[in-house]
Amino acid sequence: MCIQRNDYILVLMSKHMKVSILGIDGYIGWALALRLIGKGHQVVGVDSLYTRMRVKEVGSQSVTPIESMENRIKILREKTGENIEFFQGDVNDPEFMYSVVEKTKPDAFVHLAEQRSAPYSMIGLKQARETLMQNMGGTINLVYAMKDIVPDAHLLKLGTMGEYGTPNIDIPEGFFTIEYNGRKDTLPFPKFAGSWYHWSKVHDTNNLMFANRVWKLRITDVMQGVVYGTRIPEITDTGLFTRFDIDEVWGTALNRFCTQAVLGLPVTPYGKGDQRRGFLSLEDAVSCLMIGLEKPPEEGEYRVYNQFDQHYSVNELAGIVKERGEKVLGRDVHIERVENPRVEMDQHYYNPENKKLRNMGYVPVGDLRKDIDSILMDVDRFRERAEQVKNAIAPRTFWKKSVGLH
Amino acid sequence: MCIQRNDYILVLMSKHMKVSILGIDGYIGWALALRLIGKGHQVVGVDSLYTRMRVKEVGSQSVTPIESMENRIKILREKTGENIEFFQGDVNDPEFMYSVVEKTKPDAFVHLAEQRSAPYSMIGLKQARETLMQNMGGTINLVYAMKDIVPDAHLLKLGTMGEYGTPNIDIPEGFFTIEYNGRKDTLPFPKFAGSWYHWSKVHDTNNLMFANRVWKLRITDVMQGVVYGTRIPEITDTGLFTRFDIDEVWGTALNRFCTQAVLGLPVTPYGKGDQRRGFLSLEDAVSCLMIGLEKPPEEGEYRVYNQFDQHYSVNELAGIVKERGEKVLGRDVHIERVENPRVEMDQHYYNPENKKLRNMGYVPVGDLRKDIDSILMDVDRFRERAEQVKNAIAPRTFWKKSVGLH
Repeated sequence: MCIQRNDYILVLMSKHMKVSILGIDGYIGWALALRLIGKGHQVVGVDSLYTRMRVKEVGSQSVTPIESMENRIKILREKTGENIEFFQGDVNDPEFMYSVVEKTKPDAFVHLAEQRSAPYSMIGLKQARETLMQNMGGTINLVYAMKDIVPDAHLLKLGTMGEYGTPNIDIPEGFFTIEYNGRKDTLPFPKFAGSWYHWSKVHDTNNLMFANRVWKLRITDVMQGVVYGTRIPEITDTGLFTRFDIDEVWGTALNRFCTQAVLGLPVTPYGKGDQRRGFLSLEDAVSCLMIGLEKPPEEGEYRVYNQFDQHYSVNELAGIVKERGEKVLGRDVHIERVENPRVEMDQHYYNPENKKLRNMGYVPVGDLRKDIDSILMDVDRFRERAEQVKNAIAPRTFWKKSVGLH
Repeated sequence: MCIQRNDYILVLMSKHMKVSILGIDGYIGWALALRLIGKGHQVVGVDSLYTRMRVKEVGSQSVTPIESMENRIKILREKTGENIEFFQGDVNDPEFMYSVVEKTKPDAFVHLAEQRSAPYSMIGLKQARETLMQNMGGTINLVYAMKDIVPDAHLLKLGTMGEYGTPNIDIPEGFFTIEYNGRKDTLPFPKFAGSWYHWSKVHDTNNLMFANRVWKLRITDVMQGVVYGTRIPEITDTGLFTRFDIDEVWGTALNRFCTQAVLGLPVTPYGKGDQRRGFLSLEDAVSCLMIGLEKPPEEGEYRVYNQFDQHYSVNELAGIVKERGEKVLGRDVHIERVENPRVEMDQHYYNPENKKLRNMGYVPVGDLRKDIDSILMDVDRFRERAEQVKNAIAPRTFWKKSVGLH
């Protein structure tokens, strides 16, 4: 109730916007599009359908059935009367980026059009190069196109909490004030990422800070935690599902755990399982992005916030999936630790700050146990699709064995 | 005398090495090759002749006449009896990188094969993309080739003091220990670079830290100041000159000032002229790189040092060029401030640390006034070549006006 009242106030406060979602075909992009349309905003979408292609390549698929972009837009139009203008193409192509920005001139961009898998980036040199260059290239094209065509627009860019790594001190929201040798300054918090993918996001963050410094662009850089869940209220029809990946390359730990529980496979935390990360539900992720859009930065402002609800260790998640799985599915769920394919600390301090979004009005509604129940039920509903790709769940991508030239 | 004794001890201490210089055709690459050959090391060289091509494109040339790589190697062979195996190609091509590393299997790499001009990177989107991708691509190819072929080799990578920007606190050498909210950690010092070029070096630094973390590669990351000078003792013949650029894109402030003094043009500091940077002579740069090579990091060690002798403000440099120019050239030299084409603080605190190399045996021999005298005399000797490109000295590349798509 509280959130609905809050949202209502935000809608009253903000004028309707034209928002361009780069990466509209993705997990968060599509959910955000549904929310924006529902709130009366105009949505433009850009995507190269990259994730669909790459997920297929590893022999996997979204467990939730997803329609083509064409059908998604058609179904949405039938349900709401609203249209989404969609441009299929590669944001790393400067000509394409400029032509789309020129044609659409939005008030805001939500930039989600990046290669988003840490394991994919660690398969080998080819994938490392693709991740670093693709992600950096799209972002740099976008800041140039903004500066040249819509210099007053707002760029809301998706980064990741993974940019910070796991330092032995508290993690602030982007910047911190420190004293060193008796002098003080406020500086970007030092990043230490754990895969080429995560580093590509650090490089983007750095490039965005600089674009803001030189051209005074309005930028929100979101350090987002791991998002879980299959549902937001706007998904009222099977044809409106957003994707849900469960394989070792494209799925997150929680997605894999839920799918393993449904399929009667052991739930497999990597390594000691004390790796701790920030998490939030899909509903919370979408509502945070809405807050960012509806309360844009000042002219020339670059702001960073940490976007997550709670943090959990991998072991805690596995334990909750076991507990809920046994309850919801009515069968035993076993936990079986496997060798950690990543290079990461699996026991560490973790205390990231996340006050800024709450101060802007974010009230988390995610309830991990209820959301896991709902994921388990959705995966169970589409268990045939999950069965088809169950061989893609176990880790095959090992950081130390990242492949070289061939 | 002191330095010679020191060098002698280093040679005694260290075994002869096979060193691969990526970027051997450049300003520092060629000088370092001469030094390594002189000390009895084996040298392999890689270069795409990129800088030659790009300097020509802006209507400029090295004021010192430089021979083709083929002739350089021939002249060196005639003088010393030593050969350099040279591979012409692009380090950003994975196939080329792997084939060269496979064929040569060196003990150490000195990686200088990057686009090295801040103004070039700020001309427009095309050049920004080229700089970011070319520099990052070569470095990532190299760490993969090392891990796969010569995992025990030492990578000495050229970064820049410009990665740090101008924070209001002391600048440590790579890492610092800080307290935040009552807890302590040692973290990478936060970077804030001032051009896409400088950011490309930050991205490289980040990627190298990660490559070291995952594959335990031995890496020295050198944060080098601005290098000045036309000479090291090994340049005993006009045919052995290294390049010396004086245009607004490829030359540094000091090079431009000296050339302006020689050509009777006003010396033109950018903006207020209180920008302060670290500097070192070409002789000091080469001897620091030799120390890095002859005292490699431990197995699995990633180390950073700040490589400069003294710091000066742009105004101090202009003043010294005026003083030395009037003395050496026997004519008036005028200083004329021009609009700063860059976006940078032109008044700021600056106190970078540089103890590590001194602790490793570096004793600076650079003497700015004497070195400026020698630069002035060399530019005067080749004043006809300088005259030919004098129109390329005044700033044409403005950070805020970086060109978009076309």
